[in-house]
Amino acid sequence: MPILKETINVDLGARSYPIYIGKDFIEDADFLRSHIKGKQLVVVTDENVASFYLEAFSANFRLGFDLLEVILPAGEVYKTLESFSLIIDKSIEAGVNRNATFVALGGGVIGDITGFAAACYQRGVKFLQVPTTLLSQVDSSVGGKTGINHALGKNMIGAFYQPDAVLADVSSLDTLSEREFVAGLAEVIKYGLITDRCFYQWLIKNIESLLAREFSSLTSAIRRSCELKAQIVSLDEREIGHRALLNLGHTFGHAIEKISGYGSLLHGEAVAIGLVLSATLSSRRGWIGKGDVEILCNLLDNIGLPNKLPGTISPEELIRVMALDKKSTDDGLIFILLKNIGEAVVSSDVTSEEVLSLF
Amino acid sequence: MPILKETINVDLGARSYPIYIGKDFIEDADFLRSHIKGKQLVVVTDENVASFYLEAFSANFRLGFDLLEVILPAGEVYKTLESFSLIIDKSIEAGVNRNATFVALGGGVIGDITGFAAACYQRGVKFLQVPTTLLSQVDSSVGGKTGINHALGKNMIGAFYQPDAVLADVSSLDTLSEREFVAGLAEVIKYGLITDRCFYQWLIKNIESLLAREFSSLTSAIRRSCELKAQIVSLDEREIGHRALLNLGHTFGHAIEKISGYGSLLHGEAVAIGLVLSATLSSRRGWIGKGDVEILCNLLDNIGLPNKLPGTISPEELIRVMALDKKSTDDGLIFILLKNIGEAVVSSDVTSEEVLSLF
Repeated sequence: MPILKETINVDLGARSYPIYIGKDFIEDADFLRSHIKGKQLVVVTDENVASFYLEAFSANFRLGFDLLEVILPAGEVYKTLESFSLIIDKSIEAGVNRNATFVALGGGVIGDITGFAAACYQRGVKFLQVPTTLLSQVDSSVGGKTGINHALGKNMIGAFYQPDAVLADVSSLDTLSEREFVAGLAEVIKYGLITDRCFYQWLIKNIESLLAREFSSLTSAIRRSCELKAQIVSLDEREIGHRALLNLGHTFGHAIEKISGYGSLLHGEAVAIGLVLSATLSSRRGWIGKGDVEILCNLLDNIGLPNKLPGTISPEELIRVMALDKKSTDDGLIFILLKNIGEAVVSSDVTSEEVLSLF
Repeated sequence: MPILKETINVDLGARSYPIYIGKDFIEDADFLRSHIKGKQLVVVTDENVASFYLEAFSANFRLGFDLLEVILPAGEVYKTLESFSLIIDKSIEAGVNRNATFVALGGGVIGDITGFAAACYQRGVKFLQVPTTLLSQVDSSVGGKTGINHALGKNMIGAFYQPDAVLADVSSLDTLSEREFVAGLAEVIKYGLITDRCFYQWLIKNIESLLAREFSSLTSAIRRSCELKAQIVSLDEREIGHRALLNLGHTFGHAIEKISGYGSLLHGEAVAIGLVLSATLSSRRGWIGKGDVEILCNLLDNIGLPNKLPGTISPEELIRVMALDKKSTDDGLIFILLKNIGEAVVSSDVTSEEVLSLF
């Protein structure tokens, strides 16, 4: 039996859906089957996740279902048009029809590719997120951003396509490497900084039990992260305004990932550096204190996340690459800054000089 | 000055948009510019259309805009992932941002590819349809179906993505070949058959002035077609139910196109044959009279459209290919039949034997 700790609703009118957070979902046939409407299932995963969970997951659908498994190589470098095409090709060859459900079993990369394939296959099929990493459980599986990378930029091709449900099985985090787990915490910390000072302080206090992956504190952190993200997404699904706050640290982070080559730094690690740079920009403007930046740096350092731009990246290159980021508009670069801890704002008046002065 | 004859609203809540039908839009800078919000424009067209209209269109945006032209080879065989990728690649290379507008200047193929690229570029940018063929003015530019073909099937990859406006310039039909023009009439006739007996009878009466491309009757036919399509799309944007009626003749038509090789028969020609086969199925069930089928066959014959399955296609192959069509579901093939002239219904109980008995 699965242990269902929390259910959160993402309120998007006709596209609303639940996020379930709990334990042992992957072995519960009744619970899983209740989320599949048609007879056909396409389960997309990567080689790493497949070795841990694919057999157990697929076993629930041996009878009465047509199940197609697509196993991609693991890693951000495979978040490409080729992987997308592979899912589509295999689905067409297997005669998968538009009543099918695509299931993303894995981390953020698998969720993004699978969601985009679900959005485009025969102009859209049902889509279930089964995130197995901390990063995907607290962030990428919620909110409907799907997509793939282009040689010239991250997530340049994609869709806003909401899942029909998110099943976040906390027990799947047991098999996550320390590095992957800690990288996921960067996004959790981000939610506190953006919008909830109390949650940020709770994180600082409970960081030891989180690092020990204790079920109760982990579930609380995931629940609160999903709640905060769901609230923001409900107000601004397509990122016309407010949703951009979720990109705190990401204008820097994406550029850092790109320059260092996808895969050498994890997404969460690049975001951690971006959080510090954004906080420093905010403190230079006098919005938050120097002490706030120090507390953040120490927190990241304590859990083993980087808090400085790698020496191999020059500030000038960083600025050049950020200008190509898709968050840029006709009017220039968009940064998210902190008016206060727990209060982020969108800023379009940050100059290159201001960024250069950080280094 | 453009002559604006008609404005029709497609009512889809936050995604509502106008269809403008008139003359000489392509030379009217103020009218065209009023539909572009940002500074950046990506105009996608094909080699044929480019030779007639691209220079005139682009001339309206020489000052104050960044305009990128993407010219694809003409024809359904180029409605591929490669063409889609070309638009995306060129846009990224040119630094096109998410405030840009993608413009489809051309027929149905250009509209479908460009719309899909607009849906996916940075998760969605503004999209303007400037249809230059009869088929695209009465059908494919309205309703948000976008997509590309796969070697194994038509429109297997795509999105529902509504344009921000449709500018149907009737004067652009002047340069259309007789064959292309007449093929577009198949879709116009389809609207009458599905939902409006009076319009169908009006078409039969006015077929000579339509063939002569008289502005007044052409505009009336385009307006009524768009109105009927807009009504259906408003009720069922994502084709859960009612919208499937628009596929009258298309289950047959798509399979015929596929077997004969895309391009050897035009879409409208294949649909014409499909209309006759669907009408014959309906008359075998006693829903419409044999006389109704004869009137339809004569109408198509008079205007130079085919009304019989080509001798090179066997009924068995037709059925096999239809079973792969994306309109098939877990429960079998879906056909649209006619309860009456002007009253189509969705039918999922047509058997292979019933189809075979047509031949």
